[in-house]
Amino acid sequence: MEGRKMKIVIVGGVAGGASAAARARRLSESAEILLLERGPEVSFANCGLPYYIGGEIQSRDKLLVTTPERLRTRFRLDVRTLSFVKSIDRDQKMVRIKELTSGRTYDESYDKLILAPGAAPIRPAISGIDLPGIYTLRNLQDVDQIKSQVSSGIKHAVVLGGGFIGLEMVENFVKLGIATTMVERNAQVLGPFDREMTQPIFQALVAHGVDLQFNQNLASIKPSGEGLALHFESGLVIQTAMLIVGVGVKPETKLAVDAGLKIGVRGGIWVDDSLRTSDPDIYAVGDAIEVKDFVIGNETVVPLAGPANRQGRIAADNVLGGSSRYRGTQGTAIVGVLGVTAATTGASEKSLKRNDRAYRKVYVHPANHAGYYPGAEAMTLKMMFDPNTGTILGAQGVGGDGVDKRIDILAVAIQAGMTVFDLEEMELCYAPQYGSAKDPVNMLGFVAGGLMRGEHPQLDVEDLNPESGCLIDVRTPEEFAKGHIPGAVNLPVDELRSRLNELPDGKKITTYCQVGQRGYLATRILRQSGFEASNLSGGYKTYQLHQS
Amino acid sequence: MEGRKMKIVIVGGVAGGASAAARARRLSESAEILLLERGPEVSFANCGLPYYIGGEIQSRDKLLVTTPERLRTRFRLDVRTLSFVKSIDRDQKMVRIKELTSGRTYDESYDKLILAPGAAPIRPAISGIDLPGIYTLRNLQDVDQIKSQVSSGIKHAVVLGGGFIGLEMVENFVKLGIATTMVERNAQVLGPFDREMTQPIFQALVAHGVDLQFNQNLASIKPSGEGLALHFESGLVIQTAMLIVGVGVKPETKLAVDAGLKIGVRGGIWVDDSLRTSDPDIYAVGDAIEVKDFVIGNETVVPLAGPANRQGRIAADNVLGGSSRYRGTQGTAIVGVLGVTAATTGASEKSLKRNDRAYRKVYVHPANHAGYYPGAEAMTLKMMFDPNTGTILGAQGVGGDGVDKRIDILAVAIQAGMTVFDLEEMELCYAPQYGSAKDPVNMLGFVAGGLMRGEHPQLDVEDLNPESGCLIDVRTPEEFAKGHIPGAVNLPVDELRSRLNELPDGKKITTYCQVGQRGYLATRILRQSGFEASNLSGGYKTYQLHQS
Repeated sequence: MEGRKMKIVIVGGVAGGASAAARARRLSESAEILLLERGPEVSFANCGLPYYIGGEIQSRDKLLVTTPERLRTRFRLDVRTLSFVKSIDRDQKMVRIKELTSGRTYDESYDKLILAPGAAPIRPAISGIDLPGIYTLRNLQDVDQIKSQVSSGIKHAVVLGGGFIGLEMVENFVKLGIATTMVERNAQVLGPFDREMTQPIFQALVAHGVDLQFNQNLASIKPSGEGLALHFESGLVIQTAMLIVGVGVKPETKLAVDAGLKIGVRGGIWVDDSLRTSDPDIYAVGDAIEVKDFVIGNETVVPLAGPANRQGRIAADNVLGGSSRYRGTQGTAIVGVLGVTAATTGASEKSLKRNDRAYRKVYVHPANHAGYYPGAEAMTLKMMFDPNTGTILGAQGVGGDGVDKRIDILAVAIQAGMTVFDLEEMELCYAPQYGSAKDPVNMLGFVAGGLMRGEHPQLDVEDLNPESGCLIDVRTPEEFAKGHIPGAVNLPVDELRSRLNELPDGKKITTYCQVGQRGYLATRILRQSGFEASNLSGGYKTYQLHQS
Repeated sequence: MEGRKMKIVIVGGVAGGASAAARARRLSESAEILLLERGPEVSFANCGLPYYIGGEIQSRDKLLVTTPERLRTRFRLDVRTLSFVKSIDRDQKMVRIKELTSGRTYDESYDKLILAPGAAPIRPAISGIDLPGIYTLRNLQDVDQIKSQVSSGIKHAVVLGGGFIGLEMVENFVKLGIATTMVERNAQVLGPFDREMTQPIFQALVAHGVDLQFNQNLASIKPSGEGLALHFESGLVIQTAMLIVGVGVKPETKLAVDAGLKIGVRGGIWVDDSLRTSDPDIYAVGDAIEVKDFVIGNETVVPLAGPANRQGRIAADNVLGGSSRYRGTQGTAIVGVLGVTAATTGASEKSLKRNDRAYRKVYVHPANHAGYYPGAEAMTLKMMFDPNTGTILGAQGVGGDGVDKRIDILAVAIQAGMTVFDLEEMELCYAPQYGSAKDPVNMLGFVAGGLMRGEHPQLDVEDLNPESGCLIDVRTPEEFAKGHIPGAVNLPVDELRSRLNELPDGKKITTYCQVGQRGYLATRILRQSGFEASNLSGGYKTYQLHQS
């Protein structure tokens, strides 16, 4: 490189690519930096697209985080939009570029290449998938088309896929007054979450009149009077004006594959922890790559903006001689749907099961702030941890205000390798508008710490077995009358000490209350009176989340 | 203890005492637990008192977190309210109790004693301090009196002391439409915060018409036509109907002192990390004790509900044979005043200075969530860290929504011993309603990490010296025209590369922009062009916070 400038070529100008370019310039004024983007825009707010369709974000310009012109002026980048990179010649260290406006093809050399091609929405290979009125949601051009058809007046839309983008689209259709059907191939929305934690989202969708269809596989699409007739394998047919396909994305790896770069086991571009591909002069970042799952340790593909941005920084550091490392992803993610927030970080229970990892779990159902201050909103938090060390493995939250805060706190705890005992000691902001003297995160720690120390044995809802022992509902008779677990006997906690003689000797006893707190005390009373008792984890509320 | 029940006596039935009692019962069904409270209530919501006066909390019952009856029934505690503990006979292991209703005095023995007497509001020893219309705010009786006088119609009130409770009272008076004067002995509100971070609170108070008087010492109070005439040492006289004295609290140590228990250097009851006093059978918790500052390592007195509750748990564990440890306090605290939130955790800059601890600091001024989504609110975050290791020492935040979340995240980072580099890697919840792909906490990490790595040299506002070099404002001419630092020259960042020849050789250069981001790029450009440049930490916004 002596005697001439380092030349960095970046393929893709949205989150990871734009971050890499800006970081590279800050590190090196002398480098020649070429940013190639096949679309007309760079660095647009793709996470905002559903809200622009719904009208929450009113101005299209707001979605343009920056412009090619701005990047040129401020960062002295050679930005070329509508420029498609067709191939990489690794021996010659050249890329072949097609200028989409003119059709002209030309070559550019590189010293270091950073690939940030992103991921493409999956379009199922079924008949009719290319009919008009069918959209995926990736860029401003998609949005312009959807918005145009919405403006022309549609009465009904179908969203295929209950993931993050699918749910955001449903929310925005509901706000626009468009009758909406959500169709999901699985038995739950939000695949990265454990099913019971998605129940409040399901209920919010139902409460807002969304027609939900689970376990449905789309077979074919035909034109119809309404616009489209969607035919499902089950025989279900839905007539609709518009279909949004939100069934996930797949890494854009064609360029890498054609160049002979190593592809990972999950189908993303393989990189090491410096984000270098199998070619030492080529790095890759963002939705196209495969990274380590920080908790489980295996490979994963996580199309999220936060990691993409940080990866862009790291790749730029390393291209310019640094030694930054990517620690892997926790999969921290959040979605808001019709007033309900759902967030997750680290491993889900199902991923722990899938990977044969030992774990225990706890649930709490606290309010976001002191109950005596107006406006407290309810949430459910679930946490998985190592049964031997108490190390936190994952957490999920669903509910109103403050879910994001608690999952962020738990994300940091996972990053730091903290245990459930550390949660007991956390000193968090408390004033009645903001939290509780015992914050929901402290409560998670108390419940899990009690389990670890053996003070508070707990039975999971899945392990409830009416034949294996005595099930005692320690709530009030009024609460019991409103609904209880079949087979349960009502014995309020405040009467328990004086009615111990009513309990069968030598049988296992499971207690439960509404959220777990009275059941905990009941378990303590019973165990100290010689009974083999445990508390139903998370109480009747957790039981209810597991029903249906 | 063989052959008979353990008898635990707890003095004080609010946060720490009530937590200790409930925990003790959960750990031991057999223990005899006596909870002595000199007031008529146990475990009331003292943090809610100002909001009940203001009407935000409408029902007085809401403030009663639990009742003596509930504690008796559920936890089988022997709860005695209006019971004042006059003395401890450590040799005989007895406490002498005065029944406030009857005046009767009697003794109770203990095996283990837990002191949770709390802290008393300080009433300055000045003439007239006991006149009618002068209140402190500690319990429901205080609140009943204040509310009664407020209901009778008052036009003006004075709050003495700009701490947490003082500010909360001011907010509630403003909401009630009562003209309010806040008087503070120091030159800032919120003593635990660094002064510049309190400026947004100051501005909110002024914007809401609060009359602020700083650097005023109350000398005497006389009756007057309005009710009270407050005479200050400066000669200032304020006529008012009501005076709320909120100048801090002092640990209630008389009982401990009289019993010969060791008192700490800060005037609180001395305890070891198991919360045991100098008497092995006596523990102490809550506002009355002195604990370790988790960051600085010295002794501190922190009257906060969260630590009190956790200490109650720990003392109960240890009384019953456990070995729980209190790790010290970070002083995490939050207050909301007239739409502005201020929160702090760990060491302040002034406490680091006072303790001769080396530190560096950074400021960021981000929005709480993506700017393209409606309703984004601004905040300022300040962070102190170790200049050699990057270990985070303290943080403060002020602004709108989301300040609590970021300070909680930083509180966890401090607890975990994390560094600024860990902040760069944090994977937090991101969707446009909740955060940013680069969260404010990531931004703090980037700015501090750049400082630590030498990529981003920064000058603190306090070290600005117009004579020592060249000060360049890299904002636009429009921004510059609206206000700039005296002596600064305007040279927009986008023109900097082409105008380097205008800069003086061999002089130190300081750049600044609005919040620090363009100044950072400008510094990078200049340093790579051979200039000795640094960026003004936190930009013009931070400069403005330091003015006045």
